[in-house]
Amino acid sequence: MPLLIVTNPNIKERSDCMKVSILAVGNEVVEGKTVNTNATYLAKQLEIYGFSIISHLAVVDDPKAIKQGLADLYRFADIVITIGGLGPTIDDLTKETVADYFNAKMELNQDVLSWLEDLFAKRELRMPKTNLKQAYFIPGSQIIPNEQGTAPGMIYEQDGRVVIVLPGPPSELIPMFESTVLPYLLEKYEKDQYYAVKHYRLMNIGESHIEEIIEPLYKAYPNLKIAPYASIGVVDYIISTHDPLEKEHFEAACREFEAKLGDYIIGDWSQKINEIIVQTLSEKQLTIATAESCTGGMLASMLVDVPGSSQVFLEGFITYSNEAKMARLDVRQQDLEQYGAVSAVVAEQMARQAMLKSGSDFGLATTGIAGPSGGTVDKPVGLVYMAIAYKDQVKIYRQIFSGDREKVRLRTCLYLMFKLYQDFIKTL
Amino acid sequence: MPLLIVTNPNIKERSDCMKVSILAVGNEVVEGKTVNTNATYLAKQLEIYGFSIISHLAVVDDPKAIKQGLADLYRFADIVITIGGLGPTIDDLTKETVADYFNAKMELNQDVLSWLEDLFAKRELRMPKTNLKQAYFIPGSQIIPNEQGTAPGMIYEQDGRVVIVLPGPPSELIPMFESTVLPYLLEKYEKDQYYAVKHYRLMNIGESHIEEIIEPLYKAYPNLKIAPYASIGVVDYIISTHDPLEKEHFEAACREFEAKLGDYIIGDWSQKINEIIVQTLSEKQLTIATAESCTGGMLASMLVDVPGSSQVFLEGFITYSNEAKMARLDVRQQDLEQYGAVSAVVAEQMARQAMLKSGSDFGLATTGIAGPSGGTVDKPVGLVYMAIAYKDQVKIYRQIFSGDREKVRLRTCLYLMFKLYQDFIKTL
Repeated sequence: MPLLIVTNPNIKERSDCMKVSILAVGNEVVEGKTVNTNATYLAKQLEIYGFSIISHLAVVDDPKAIKQGLADLYRFADIVITIGGLGPTIDDLTKETVADYFNAKMELNQDVLSWLEDLFAKRELRMPKTNLKQAYFIPGSQIIPNEQGTAPGMIYEQDGRVVIVLPGPPSELIPMFESTVLPYLLEKYEKDQYYAVKHYRLMNIGESHIEEIIEPLYKAYPNLKIAPYASIGVVDYIISTHDPLEKEHFEAACREFEAKLGDYIIGDWSQKINEIIVQTLSEKQLTIATAESCTGGMLASMLVDVPGSSQVFLEGFITYSNEAKMARLDVRQQDLEQYGAVSAVVAEQMARQAMLKSGSDFGLATTGIAGPSGGTVDKPVGLVYMAIAYKDQVKIYRQIFSGDREKVRLRTCLYLMFKLYQDFIKTL
Repeated sequence: MPLLIVTNPNIKERSDCMKVSILAVGNEVVEGKTVNTNATYLAKQLEIYGFSIISHLAVVDDPKAIKQGLADLYRFADIVITIGGLGPTIDDLTKETVADYFNAKMELNQDVLSWLEDLFAKRELRMPKTNLKQAYFIPGSQIIPNEQGTAPGMIYEQDGRVVIVLPGPPSELIPMFESTVLPYLLEKYEKDQYYAVKHYRLMNIGESHIEEIIEPLYKAYPNLKIAPYASIGVVDYIISTHDPLEKEHFEAACREFEAKLGDYIIGDWSQKINEIIVQTLSEKQLTIATAESCTGGMLASMLVDVPGSSQVFLEGFITYSNEAKMARLDVRQQDLEQYGAVSAVVAEQMARQAMLKSGSDFGLATTGIAGPSGGTVDKPVGLVYMAIAYKDQVKIYRQIFSGDREKVRLRTCLYLMFKLYQDFIKTL
């Protein structure tokens, strides 16, 4: 399977110097009622297109806080995108405060007013007076149409500072960003500047070990951006530059990164190990079954989460008790007594029997001590035996995973899927 | 089972005026790679305990940006909680920058160093040199132990400014907040001010339906804080006041809330439905087995995620293919052909056979169309049949759940566990 690393051709020629900050306005965000997924969405979109996101701020529905936030953000940002506070209620003050910050006076826009009145008329309602304020804008601003709600957005520029005002509901913000804001930004800031980026996803190696391995790269290429993004069981890296003079360094750094770490790279950031497995097995018309003890269905659930998994995943045995291991998978009672349920010999039997009983090509098994109790000196919490059966062969893996119960179980699933990919699927 | 609603006596007498800001540090947050759920979690927790959250800021892994962020936030906040940037890499600079901001010099803590070295030794690994910096702290600071990772946190105070430094992974941050930070804050800011609060967790009812039902409460008690926090399958409510004159209103509002919505309340915010089920079945020495199709092991995995589940959960059948349903659970081929795998009659057989074959007290089954494809006019995406077998009885549930594949599967698991609690466990 080839590595899926690409330099996106669409993002090579964007400006690298426009700095963007995101200002979310709303008690519901600040008080922890709502997760600020809007900021994440906007940041990711803008990063892809070569803008530089420098900060996110969230403040309460208070004009003083909003105004201070704008002032703080414009110290370093060229563009501020505000989220929320465009509704019809007295708490919704973002647009008013933006106008105040720029010493601008908003005026009623007759087109928007007519559109609003039509909107209510279509629903056989009269427009409440409170909605009138949604038709006021700073003269000279660009209005961002909203197909999903009553709050149009606004783009306004003054003395090199750009403000983009968007509503809070993601179902309104996302289409408005895509249809109006992104085209505006790309049109305005399109320049001939260079931007090259590659992103890599690695598994089965820790961030600190990767850092030791690539330390020479940081030293050899100090002007490149080389940065890790770690989460449980997965480490992502970005290598990028905005400097055309760094082109050769960029390419050399990517080559060296891939040469040093190729064994651990599963692709770019869009790749998930469960999706790779389901897609590859589906292409090769191979099937899989699972036999889980400590992971308790999590492994199967991660495979089933991939659309189309029904072509690949036949069934799973969650043999949590010893009785279930014996009854369902013919695990020998003598082995359970002699070696214990958490042992190589039991993992082997579970994997082989999952394969044989289901008639699948692959059988995957997990048995371990997820904790928090149940550990001994010989078999500590975190000890997991895993096995992969394929035809006459059963490969066994032993690991001691760190973290709490949930993490040990998740790491087990990710590790075993990675090993299925590395030791079997890659070479098929 | 009695309702688990308490007014925490520990939090009645807290100050309401300590202002808190949250500073997330990390390119992964600012660039939109990671949703900042930590800020939401911390804000929600602190709100519950009567602190006032005034802003969230997220900045990149750059000491200048971190330092500026601290300076900006301390203009208005008494306490700043930093998130992230405690890892072993050269990008992880939060602790170093906090020390720099306070003009303090960090020193090696021998206890933490020994603990770190032990941690690696237990996993049969040597400690990379890069991890050494995780053992450095400002003298006089309080170290926050981290049971889930290699990055301890730090609480430091200077001239009335408090900084609380926490790592980024939620699986580390949450237990550290609960075990050390929250007790520290409650101890430190205990004052004689009045604060009464109750929080409720509701399932199987939507936020807008609850809002319709409790509209009279908002009108009757305008000075109380009554606020919802919705997530998938669960809605949390807080009722609170800082005003001792509102004490009687507060108590009346809680009584009315419980009277109107008691059927949907599973307890306070600490309650999770899978934990309630495992704990209650464990107390009553009852056992459970699962038979899953569309949920593919997720239901079992949620039960197994509760420590002590081995006393309760015997085994699970993930019968994804029709062949597996017939071979493992004796589902009749004729019924599969006549009614389809997604049908009441198949769900019933799955639940009953899971109970009988495992010898458990309860058998739970799921079969549905999780999407994105596979739906028809008669059986749309989101249609799920669920069943609970108990002795001679099998109760069947039919629902059409909204959302994508992952959400349909999660809603199925939550719904079925709630029904097990409401229709069986509550009355046992």
